[in-house]
Amino acid sequence: MEVVTTIEELRAALDLRRGKPLGSNKTGKIGFVPTMGFLHDGHASLMERAKRECDTVVLSIFVNPLQFGPNEDFDRYPRDEERDKAIARREGVDFIFMPDVQTMYPQRIRTTVSVSGVTEKLCGASRPGHFDGVATVVSKLFNIVQPDRAYFGMKDAQQVAVVEQMTKDLNMRVTIVPCPTLREADGLAMSSRNVYLSADERKQALVLSQALGFAEKWSAEAGEDSESVIRRVRNHIESAPSAVIDYVELLSYPSLTSTQEWSEAGITDDRMVLALAVKFGKTRLIDNRILPINKAWMNKAEEAGACSGR
Amino acid sequence: MEVVTTIEELRAALDLRRGKPLGSNKTGKIGFVPTMGFLHDGHASLMERAKRECDTVVLSIFVNPLQFGPNEDFDRYPRDEERDKAIARREGVDFIFMPDVQTMYPQRIRTTVSVSGVTEKLCGASRPGHFDGVATVVSKLFNIVQPDRAYFGMKDAQQVAVVEQMTKDLNMRVTIVPCPTLREADGLAMSSRNVYLSADERKQALVLSQALGFAEKWSAEAGEDSESVIRRVRNHIESAPSAVIDYVELLSYPSLTSTQEWSEAGITDDRMVLALAVKFGKTRLIDNRILPINKAWMNKAEEAGACSGR
Repeated sequence: MEVVTTIEELRAALDLRRGKPLGSNKTGKIGFVPTMGFLHDGHASLMERAKRECDTVVLSIFVNPLQFGPNEDFDRYPRDEERDKAIARREGVDFIFMPDVQTMYPQRIRTTVSVSGVTEKLCGASRPGHFDGVATVVSKLFNIVQPDRAYFGMKDAQQVAVVEQMTKDLNMRVTIVPCPTLREADGLAMSSRNVYLSADERKQALVLSQALGFAEKWSAEAGEDSESVIRRVRNHIESAPSAVIDYVELLSYPSLTSTQEWSEAGITDDRMVLALAVKFGKTRLIDNRILPINKAWMNKAEEAGACSGR
Repeated sequence: MEVVTTIEELRAALDLRRGKPLGSNKTGKIGFVPTMGFLHDGHASLMERAKRECDTVVLSIFVNPLQFGPNEDFDRYPRDEERDKAIARREGVDFIFMPDVQTMYPQRIRTTVSVSGVTEKLCGASRPGHFDGVATVVSKLFNIVQPDRAYFGMKDAQQVAVVEQMTKDLNMRVTIVPCPTLREADGLAMSSRNVYLSADERKQALVLSQALGFAEKWSAEAGEDSESVIRRVRNHIESAPSAVIDYVELLSYPSLTSTQEWSEAGITDDRMVLALAVKFGKTRLIDNRILPINKAWMNKAEEAGACSGR
């Protein structure tokens, strides 16, 4: 495994491997796992899948200032380079790209990549500019690594939707591979930010995965609609005394259309996402569950649309 | 020469040549000339240079709806496919990529690439959204063609500045090659839009290149400042009865900083651009001249800055 800090070095090394079938997979493909470091088993599962599907695996570790708001946790985002390297080595990563901020932003960046429609809701509403920062840095990283396949965890379902939309719209030559969220034994979605939680908050945070599990059942029950499911999810979360809800929303996926707009927008999505962001103390956690689309709700929305003469 | 209309065909054909030294140049490089067609000798000079520097030359012809405003000339933009093909063949182009709108925008595009700082002035002010459309389609074309070098005419000096900034900011792996403006024998800058001009307007339009020629002298004269040079340029243009000035501006290049801001912005540019856009009847023409930066003006701006306590 090589640790690389400059763009030139990484490109030179990857050019020697690009398109040349090596190793046991013999695909000649380059797999890319972009991360902000402080790796956990969720990240490891992305590397493991990349290793299975590609000849060369590149992991990037870069805490991107562009995607943090002024009052967010950029400065205190957890870092542990030595542990990260050990995990990457264990997973068979070929190159870790660890640029510093000066390497990624040598001058004031004037170019922004933004994706409308899927970035205004959920975390986009709570964190203005966040997804512009994500789309811009992912564009940069894709241009630096030029991967065949890039691996993203579905814990950030909205991020996956944004990156997929951008890739398609801009004809980027990379396949986005969404990978399942990994969870602790008790159900908490793995996240680098979990280390912020006190023992008590850690225990309370279980309401998130519980509520999502219940919601899967509730959303299939007759008589329920998206509002009543959301209400029940909120109630369950608020049973935890420290929980402060940022949002709980149910949208079609991946276009992130709200049920109220379904008839109007003529959506073609066949899935929904129940997504939430909740603060425990200073720590903001996100989680979500992808559900089959509820056709009854869509019909209801269509009827409402027809009645109002649209 | 192959005429290609789909992205898949073009990629497959280019993959067979990419990085493999062929022909007399033996560089293995792919050169790219993006155009909106209705080719003239200015375009031909780009192809000729690409041919000299690269093994494979790709010309794209696509009138991009995204960069036209609602009241602009998208629908009547001149087209002549057969003549374009003949010119491309004569210049030794290997592939003409002529996608239709459906190929470039199969669904509503939600992703925008925008470059701040260099897009608000000049044509960016007169044509809101124009440079977002340019940056976005150029990103798409770069991702489709994946060229080593891309050739742009300096008649659109601002477009060159935008594309260079974007390429640098997003780490795109392509070298931008700015090429000199080609002119008719009497000095008029070559443009596909020149065909719109009536015989009388065509004659009057000569004031543009004349004024730029004079301005080069004026800007070196003692006692002149940017305002007085601009005034003299405007006066000369307005000697043509049909001329309606959109803008005449003198900015540093390529950051497009106005002389008033020079001290403040601490610019590092070593050139200036005198740029103009003028309408003759319904036809809007642009032209510009790159000049060495006038140090005296910069000092003056700095003194003014110092006096006002900045």
